[in-house]
Amino acid sequence: MAGTVFFHVTMSLDGFIAPAEVPVEDMFGPERKPDDPAVRRWMAQWGELHQTTFPQRFFRENLKLGEGGAENRDNEISQATFERTGASVMGKRMFDGGELAWPEEAPFHTPVFVVTHTEREPWERPGGTTFHFVNDGIESALKQAREAAGERDVRIAGGATTILEYLNAGLIDEFTITVSPVLFGTGTRLFDEVNADRIALEPRDTEFTGRVTYLTYAVHEREAG
Amino acid sequence: MAGTVFFHVTMSLDGFIAPAEVPVEDMFGPERKPDDPAVRRWMAQWGELHQTTFPQRFFRENLKLGEGGAENRDNEISQATFERTGASVMGKRMFDGGELAWPEEAPFHTPVFVVTHTEREPWERPGGTTFHFVNDGIESALKQAREAAGERDVRIAGGATTILEYLNAGLIDEFTITVSPVLFGTGTRLFDEVNADRIALEPRDTEFTGRVTYLTYAVHEREAG
Repeated sequence: MAGTVFFHVTMSLDGFIAPAEVPVEDMFGPERKPDDPAVRRWMAQWGELHQTTFPQRFFRENLKLGEGGAENRDNEISQATFERTGASVMGKRMFDGGELAWPEEAPFHTPVFVVTHTEREPWERPGGTTFHFVNDGIESALKQAREAAGERDVRIAGGATTILEYLNAGLIDEFTITVSPVLFGTGTRLFDEVNADRIALEPRDTEFTGRVTYLTYAVHEREAG
Repeated sequence: MAGTVFFHVTMSLDGFIAPAEVPVEDMFGPERKPDDPAVRRWMAQWGELHQTTFPQRFFRENLKLGEGGAENRDNEISQATFERTGASVMGKRMFDGGELAWPEEAPFHTPVFVVTHTEREPWERPGGTTFHFVNDGIESALKQAREAAGERDVRIAGGATTILEYLNAGLIDEFTITVSPVLFGTGTRLFDEVNADRIALEPRDTEFTGRVTYLTYAVHEREAG
């Protein structure tokens, strides 16, 4: 009935999807501190991690960063990932950061379900994104996202903690990791809390576009050893 | 003058090149304990990590596991990696494990330089492998390996600690990681001690052979930020 449940994140070669944490207000808040050394380091590392993403035409248009941009294979992949997604699920921390960083016309253009303890009315943004705040857990958020997505797929958008909760619960069908040619040494690891004994991966595809490599896997429940 | 200094290791998708540690004597020693749960787990994880390697014709012949085997692209890559290698460098722990596990005709068939505090005469094995024990550090071991390799390349064979010592010292020219579709959760991480601020990676090539993906990078010193 419903579509595929997936995630797609960009990871450093040493396994991090974000640099060492910096208070989100210092980066994106009204009193942000762009010259703070920790903020500068975070921004520099984030920029290298996503160096292939930021120049893309689709990314620039969707984040309201301006017209034009690269129309390469990476751009096609970003656009295809957007188009397959009928609804997204995210954690509260990702939402809190995004609320400060996204443009008014938030970049999802679909319903987004935020897993949180905070009670809040749905928040409708121009351009078709509506944030729904789900207080009764990840399965409920996924159920609502599936219904909202219809025939399209559900993306578990992030962050790492939320993605791993879904992965460990056996609720992810497939995922893609964009391996970026950078080493962080510290930061937020994607797989830090993985329940490795329960998960078997089936390689689906690999694509190298000149700088990054897209690794796609189907997820299966591991048979008892 | 000399060839390329490289390493090539197989890594789980979550960044481990070996399972959680088990005493090597329990696995390969004369009184090994194949039924110990920790040993069974280590062996099972090691087998999954290298599932693409063990059936290869080249691997089986070189490790004296028997005639025949897969003659696929993975086998070609293993053989090419062997043929480019004129000398290897390894740490003492890798040597200690290998001394118990390798066949009498050790699988290198070239000089091997073991970085160790232990003093020991060169140990010549049938088939062309001679182990030299180097007591004055990684640069000395590399210099001797370069001379022994002639026009061929020098492989930093392992383990993780030794590879990272060379990488952090700026002594690696390029490396290949075979990403295996497994998640370990715990174990020995390849990049745990990486000096990320000093290293810039240049993607060279990616190859997907159906199960594993080979990621190859050139290593450059990072310009001051």
